Formats: sequence, C-alpha cells, structure tokens
Amino acid sequence: MRLVRLGTAGAERPGIQTEAGVFDVSAFGEDYSGQFFATDGVTRLRQWWARHEKECPAVPEGTRFGAPVAAPSKLICIGLNYADHARETNATPPEEPIIFFKATSSLTGPNDEVIIPRNSGKTDWEVELAVVIGKKASYVEEGDAMNYVAGYCLHNDYSERSFQLERGGQWVKGKSCDTFAPLGPALVTPDEIADINKLRLWLTVNGKKMQDGNTADLIFKIPFLVSYLSQFMSLLPGDIISTGTPAGVGLGMQPQVYLKAGDVVECGIDGLGSSRQELKAWSA
Amino acid sequence: MRLVRLGTAGAERPGIQTEAGVFDVSAFGEDYSGQFFATDGVTRLRQWWARHEKECPAVPEGTRFGAPVAAPSKLICIGLNYADHARETNATPPEEPIIFFKATSSLTGPNDEVIIPRNSGKTDWEVELAVVIGKKASYVEEGDAMNYVAGYCLHNDYSERSFQLERGGQWVKGKSCDTFAPLGPALVTPDEIADINKLRLWLTVNGKKMQDGNTADLIFKIPFLVSYLSQFMSLLPGDIISTGTPAGVGLGMQPQVYLKAGDVVECGIDGLGSSRQELKAWSA
Repeated sequence: MRLVRLGTAGAERPGIQTEAGVFDVSAFGEDYSGQFFATDGVTRLRQWWARHEKECPAVPEGTRFGAPVAAPSKLICIGLNYADHARETNATPPEEPIIFFKATSSLTGPNDEVIIPRNSGKTDWEVELAVVIGKKASYVEEGDAMNYVAGYCLHNDYSERSFQLERGGQWVKGKSCDTFAPLGPALVTPDEIADINKLRLWLTVNGKKMQDGNTADLIFKIPFLVSYLSQFMSLLPGDIISTGTPAGVGLGMQPQVYLKAGDVVECGIDGLGSSRQELKAWSA
Repeated sequence: MRLVRLGTAGAERPGIQTEAGVFDVSAFGEDYSGQFFATDGVTRLRQWWARHEKECPAVPEGTRFGAPVAAPSKLICIGLNYADHARETNATPPEEPIIFFKATSSLTGPNDEVIIPRNSGKTDWEVELAVVIGKKASYVEEGDAMNYVAGYCLHNDYSERSFQLERGGQWVKGKSCDTFAPLGPALVTPDEIADINKLRLWLTVNGKKMQDGNTADLIFKIPFLVSYLSQFMSLLPGDIISTGTPAGVGLGMQPQVYLKAGDVVECGIDGLGSSRQELKAWSA
C-alpha cells in the first residue's frame, strides 16, 4: 500500500496511491499521525480500503502532495552511512552510526519549493531512503527490528553547509531550516518492496545527474539502525529515520557546488517514486 | 500565572498553581499544547480563570505533576552557555551559541523517576532555565524576541556522557534517553518574574550542593537566543529552549562523579519552583 497526504499545506487529507491513480480516503477518518500508526492504522486502513475502494474519489491531476506522515515526534538522520559519501567529504567511515536530528518543522511536501535561507551560501542536497516507525521501539533486538517498521519514503535531506559546519558545534543548525526536508510522495509499506537493500537512488540538479547510488552500499542496514537508535531513545510511531546519502553532494565536489534560486532538484528511489523541488530565495 | 499539568503520565489534565494551592482547570477544555499557545491560550486562560476560579477543584496533595507543556515539536538546548561550565569541561566559551536537540520523547514530569539507561556508566545532571515559545518565530529581531516567549520552566538536562562524547559524532545520542528531560513543575508566565537575568539556579545530589549559579552569568541571553535560533529554523508555539547549565556537573569534577540507582537529585530556580528525581536502574 502507498499512503499519501493531499492538498493544502497544514490541512492535508489522507490518500492512497494505486496503479489506477490517487484516491482521497478522508472517509477513513484519520490522518497518518503517530496515533494512526500506534493503533495498527495500516492494517485497519487496508481492511477499510478493501471494503470502500470504489467509493473513494479520485484526486485531480496536479493536486499537491504533503509529507506522507503527519507531525512525527522526531526526524532522525544517520550521517556518513555510505562509504563513498564519507570519502568525498574527507571523513572516515564511522565505527558506529552518527546520529543527528532535523527539526520536524523542516518537513514539507515532495514537490514544494525549497527556500534558500537568509544568509545562506551553501545550500546542498542529499537523496536518502527514510524509514517510518510503526510502533514504539525501545531496546529492540536487531532480529526483531523490522517488526517496528511501518514503511519507507523518499527524503531529500537539504543541508546548509556553512550553518552545519562553520557556525560552531552541532550539525542540527544546518539541517533544520523550513522546507529542508521534502518527504514523499508516498509512504510505501514493506510488502511492496522486494529487497530494501537493492534500491537505486539518484538525484539530478537542472537535469544533470549528481547522485547515483544503491541501498546495497549502506554501511549500517535498517534493522541495525532501528535496534541501535532504540538503545539511546524510544522511537515513537510515526518517527522518521533517514538512512544517509550516497556520494555526489555539492560539498564533495571540486570546486564545491551549491544551489541558487531557480535551480531544480529531482530525485528518486526505485519503488518509492520521485520528487522535484524548485529552489527559491528567501524573502520577508 | 503558573501553568501545571496534573495526573497520570500520558493523560495529564491542565491545572493552575496559586498561593492557595493547585487547581484543576480541565473545565477550560484545552491542554497546554502548541495549539493552545498558538491561539493566545495564556490570555484566554487568564480571562477564563478570572470568571471560573471559584469553581475549579483543588488538587489533592501528592498529585503527580507532568511536564507543563504537552507534546512540543522540539526541545532545543544551548551548549556551554555559562563561562564557568565551559571552563570545567575544558571547552572554550563559544563565539556563537552551540545548538543541540533532545528527543521530545525524553520529557517527563519534574518529580518522576529518572531511568539510568542500559549500558550507562556516565549519567550526569544539568540544571537549566528553559524558555517556552508562545508563537511562531522565524527571523525575529532581538528587540522583538520577548514577544515570542510564553513563559519559563525549570529543566534538568540529564546527559549520558559516554553516549554523548565517546560514541561518535553528535551530542543528541547522549541527551535523548527516556526520562532525561524532567520539566517543571510549572510554566511561569513572564509577568511573574521580576528579572529573568537575576535568578539563582541550584542542584543537589543526595543533599550535597553541586551546582549554584545565576542566570546573570548566561553568555547568550534569552532575546539573543530566540532571535538567533529563529535564523536557522522556525520556532513553533510550545517549543522549548533550554538555555544551558552553570558549573558543577559530574563531568567537570576531578575525579568525575556520575549517578547511580538510588541517588536523589533536587534542583530549583528562583521563582520557578523545584523538582526532585530519584535515579533508578534500567530493567526490562
């Protein structure tokens, strides 16, 4: 099943994407929030859909997609989780996962404009596979970890490199700007993905291929990450884990390349769809 | 006004603390969430209380306090914001604020037990003044910043120093364990505090004074912090900014001192009340 959220930012309606189109499931009566996942919402929705599919209105072409999860409690990212990306940023591949957070206020729809923040000179891209947590996970064993996964999304982890690396201390400062986390289009349930460790992920800027990786090259795999994170904090239903980016970010180029207003970034992951962001300058 | 949340964890009811006692204001019909602050809830509650004070039941002695804010979108902390604390940890006072996040899932009531995480040997304390945001703040000027503050709380920013400093990368890993953010007892509105820059803050472990500082020594003051943070992310109503800790943490002692099961930590800030946590070992 492919869960989407549709319509005006801040007032999205739940939807389902099938091969036949995109359908409004507002009649199900629940948004895709932590509460939805915590109460086995995916299974309940699947059963509801089997009975009500024919009554659900198709959504007009061009309807906006929102981030497919409503108000997650946290957006956790894994740093340097592809060896080629660690190399291009002159970092040693980590011995254990590097964790950082993005503010959840940075979440936006997959095709929304991305705002280059005020005083930014180094806005960069990072295509990533994101994992959505389905039930509360605390001290979970690696062998049991996949039972805590509700699904997967495409995520573009935008980063302001000067805020992140040149302004004192912790990375969160360059990761949390509004619109810096386009998520979606869909939350895709695990039964739709044959092998999560064999998905191509790619990103272009103005049509030029910048990133072209494969989840086969993840240093730390999803079950390990869920188990590992759950040793340090409870993962709550709806929480998002973004698993890291392969080589090809602007920071790693010689000379470095950063985004400017009018640039168009497109990215995608096999089976999870694609997204497109036009960059826009900040204005008051 | 002093806002409190009362009763069972996860099902707290809103309350008001006065010199006459603590009163249940469930009849007001709203929890102290982002939505409450975003809709000028403090003013509305004040008006409601003026009309309904006499009808609100007093809460029995011994009723549990929860964290006084419900489900904030973020819990932002400022690192090394007192010069004496920077010195004791062998750090240079920062040129601009160091920002890190705690997972909001670490929030707990001010007098709840604090769980020493599994595999922890270095659980430490940090008494801090926390600021609660009252309305959405993006690119706010320093001179206007106090208009975005709903109130203040006492916060004990528990930290696992080996997770924070010896496990690769970013501090969030040692700051986010469940129960690591006892907040409260009360959210105290600014009109109740004569001078926010002249408050004593203190902490004891098993009755022994460990921290004894004053907000006069904050390197970066609250208006600057609100303005500064709002350059990097939108601060949402209900978001919490914890402003840093003075000297006297376990990490800074020679030899270092860390918490063990059965220890009792008490802390307080002039005008904001005090809190008490008993440490407990993790168990499955």
